[in-house]
Amino acid sequence: MHDSRLSALIIDCDVDDLAAASRFWAGALGREVVAPPAAGSPYIDLSERPGELTVVVQKVAHASRLHLDLETNDVEAEVARLERLGARRVAYVKDWWVLEAPTGQRFCVVPARKPMTGGSHWD
Amino acid sequence: MHDSRLSALIIDCDVDDLAAASRFWAGALGREVVAPPAAGSPYIDLSERPGELTVVVQKVAHASRLHLDLETNDVEAEVARLERLGARRVAYVKDWWVLEAPTGQRFCVVPARKPMTGGSHWD
Repeated sequence: MHDSRLSALIIDCDVDDLAAASRFWAGALGREVVAPPAAGSPYIDLSERPGELTVVVQKVAHASRLHLDLETNDVEAEVARLERLGARRVAYVKDWWVLEAPTGQRFCVVPARKPMTGGSHWD
Repeated sequence: MHDSRLSALIIDCDVDDLAAASRFWAGALGREVVAPPAAGSPYIDLSERPGELTVVVQKVAHASRLHLDLETNDVEAEVARLERLGARRVAYVKDWWVLEAPTGQRFCVVPARKPMTGGSHWD
């Protein structure tokens, strides 16, 4: 038994200037840039909005796109569940899996960083 | 003065079988397929989840990807605001604009179908 939920939208940006990218997306979505990234970090968090998804802007070295993160308290069980639905494993990175949907989009299954609320419970 | 907000995540799927695509994404995200699409419609809605974004699965004739919809009570004013932030107009479709972010992703500015709540207010 485990839980999972859609936890974040990651805006993957193939850009040199991550700060400028985050300013655009913050402005577009009516959010604030929470903080400049830690030195060497490819991530900038945008402020949360009630009833909306967490949004993170990421500097990437592939074509710009969007991807979803699903968080779970059991990564292996969640990946196995998604494989049964038709997803396939692409790569294990640090402590999460990159999967590819049968419809072609890549997404990540990440360990929950906090106790999970509001997710789906899978037997 | 107008309002805008992030209203939906659209899962663009370059597939023959939209129903199968929607079943995968519903299962992955712990949602239900609300209804089969109307004849000829490229859209299938997934059920809503509290605190999460509206998610729609769309059949497309380009590479699979994700895109965001921003809804607004003044499409022209919102598009002009986004242009000032660096977006550019790509195409006007029915009653919405397709824009391209300076970071390369395409997204849509659509007229709000219901009175807006929870959005950002722009002077």
